[in-house]
Amino acid sequence: MDYNATTPVDSEVLGAITASLTGAWGNPSSSHEAGLAAKSIIDEARENVARMVGAKTSDIVFTSGGTEYFHKSHDRQNGVDFSKGDNTDSLPHFITSNLEHDSVKLVLEHFAEEGLAKVSFVPASQTTGCVEVEDIVSSIRPTTCMITVMLANNETGVIQPIKEICERVQQINANRRNQPPILLHTDAAQAIGKINVDVLDLDVDYLTIVGHKFYAPRNGAIYVRNLEEKGAPLYPMLYGGGQERNYRPGTENTAMIAGLGKAAELVVQNLDKYQKHMEEVRDHLEVRLMEEFGDNIHFNGKFDTSSRLPNTCDKVLSKCNIVQASVGAACHSQNRASPILLAIGVPDSIARNALRLSVGRETTLSDIDFVISDLKQAVQYLQNQAT
Amino acid sequence: MDYNATTPVDSEVLGAITASLTGAWGNPSSSHEAGLAAKSIIDEARENVARMVGAKTSDIVFTSGGTEYFHKSHDRQNGVDFSKGDNTDSLPHFITSNLEHDSVKLVLEHFAEEGLAKVSFVPASQTTGCVEVEDIVSSIRPTTCMITVMLANNETGVIQPIKEICERVQQINANRRNQPPILLHTDAAQAIGKINVDVLDLDVDYLTIVGHKFYAPRNGAIYVRNLEEKGAPLYPMLYGGGQERNYRPGTENTAMIAGLGKAAELVVQNLDKYQKHMEEVRDHLEVRLMEEFGDNIHFNGKFDTSSRLPNTCDKVLSKCNIVQASVGAACHSQNRASPILLAIGVPDSIARNALRLSVGRETTLSDIDFVISDLKQAVQYLQNQAT
Repeated sequence: MDYNATTPVDSEVLGAITASLTGAWGNPSSSHEAGLAAKSIIDEARENVARMVGAKTSDIVFTSGGTEYFHKSHDRQNGVDFSKGDNTDSLPHFITSNLEHDSVKLVLEHFAEEGLAKVSFVPASQTTGCVEVEDIVSSIRPTTCMITVMLANNETGVIQPIKEICERVQQINANRRNQPPILLHTDAAQAIGKINVDVLDLDVDYLTIVGHKFYAPRNGAIYVRNLEEKGAPLYPMLYGGGQERNYRPGTENTAMIAGLGKAAELVVQNLDKYQKHMEEVRDHLEVRLMEEFGDNIHFNGKFDTSSRLPNTCDKVLSKCNIVQASVGAACHSQNRASPILLAIGVPDSIARNALRLSVGRETTLSDIDFVISDLKQAVQYLQNQAT
Repeated sequence: MDYNATTPVDSEVLGAITASLTGAWGNPSSSHEAGLAAKSIIDEARENVARMVGAKTSDIVFTSGGTEYFHKSHDRQNGVDFSKGDNTDSLPHFITSNLEHDSVKLVLEHFAEEGLAKVSFVPASQTTGCVEVEDIVSSIRPTTCMITVMLANNETGVIQPIKEICERVQQINANRRNQPPILLHTDAAQAIGKINVDVLDLDVDYLTIVGHKFYAPRNGAIYVRNLEEKGAPLYPMLYGGGQERNYRPGTENTAMIAGLGKAAELVVQNLDKYQKHMEEVRDHLEVRLMEEFGDNIHFNGKFDTSSRLPNTCDKVLSKCNIVQASVGAACHSQNRASPILLAIGVPDSIARNALRLSVGRETTLSDIDFVISDLKQAVQYLQNQAT
């Protein structure tokens, strides 16, 4: 019940990984046959990943995972001119939400702390669980260089209005005279494999792809709009043997890339099926939770006006303060209240007792019945303890 | 015959990877059972990697591969104070050799080009294929902050005098008054799994471990002396979920780490056997090459006074300018002369016709006979073409 933390690799993905480890272990940079076999696997994977998000093949760069992405485009040395002198009014300005993953949030906090940039953390609405388009737009300054908002929240499952934000910002960009266009980044880690994600439809410049959230291994890729045609800028963090067109040097992890490609292919083929299945199971979970616990629970992700991921039951809160087995995002499994829940207006005392339940492709209705009975016995046990 | 470019994963390593992908796919940061199973695999792998290089467990940080290492400790934001103002005499100073891999060389060239640091590229001796201890020591300045020299060269296989360099530099450090000690880094990518590598014996502060050179997958680790006890400094390049004690955030690639650990365990158990076998096969190769091609070949790595890796026949040059199938390091498979060969004094015209032949754990004496006969027919073919 924790598929938003990570997923297993699909059996076909496992097959692609082991086939690559045994049959294509050559160095993709080698010009002999073993090298060419590895290179061709990487090319095919890039096509599948591109297809999954509606991108051109040349717009995809493979990386070691999601945490690496955001830095790549916003490294202080590059991408953004951080050297405008002492006048803090002229520092580059970033806009983000207060719902972001630490791999985005902490980078921006670091920029701000070091006096390298200004950052606006736009609060999400407590009635929708979404960051509001108007709040983003009204935060834009002449120095704004980038807006980054996640596509779907990892804890609440609420889908953020990225397409709408991009539409408004592209209009603003069209009328921007003396500044470069504002660049748009979205972290699609939790959305891919659960809802349709299309970079052209969203109209983003950068999109983060994280393998281990969609039954691929623990690597990833970044989409960069028109990378080959000098569209959105991407600057390497690393220097080395020139792999990934110098954007991400280091001998390619062929097996992981093969797995990512296979998982992308499965998403292209089966997204509708995955989506329907997860939604059915998640809805059953919510019905059963209501039946069993009634008024004692509260669904954080169920904002009536917001769309949400099909697999996330998004936070179940025990109002009665009994279920202590708190689970937030895996990266923050310390026993403290989830900053995301606090951000959407959940009081600390309740947020501390939150459970995130997220289903996967193979979760069944009878799994749900088992979960309910397990939760019942846990609540019973804790009630007995308390009395 | 190209095991210095990369190696297959050992069958036991493959077993560890697939076992982890199927049985321990939980997020190592999750506090439930699936997470703890993954975490325990990572702990075990760290112990094995530490044991392989004679380090403490807490001195090992897992990363995505060799290219990531050097930056981690020398990021411009951290580690070294790059902000000493306009006086270039006070810029931090690095010493390295002219034999380094691009993942070290290009970083330092970048620092120098950007005016962030001074760098001395100490040329290797053309009679030994080694960088000389005295040349390194005489390059030390009051501003020297770090010396980085690889442990064994990837193309010639010549083992560099790291222990001797460290011994001299530690003496100098003991007498250094107003400056911090000079830090010592070695890239052990090509040495591990071929010769014994012990961080305490070498007396280095940092050591680079690259999985895919010793039958592990395409990830790696960095050794940092007394990391937990605030020994050698290590600063993260990335910000995120706090994994690897915040030194390398990003959800851990459990399967790759499990593979690295198993490969390290195999090295600990079998290094002597691997070493003897590869040496026997390589020596047979050299004897057979001499028998067949005699005066027409030249062994670049065979400097009488230098030790070399047991598996690398180090560079075979066709003096008669016939064998065109040039192979240098995989990262530079373009048809240009190897910078390493040029650095050790091989003329450009000859260096262009070099072949690097490196054997592996499973290369047999009869494989060598096949290689010789294949080379013979290639030479014959090219001779016919030429006449």
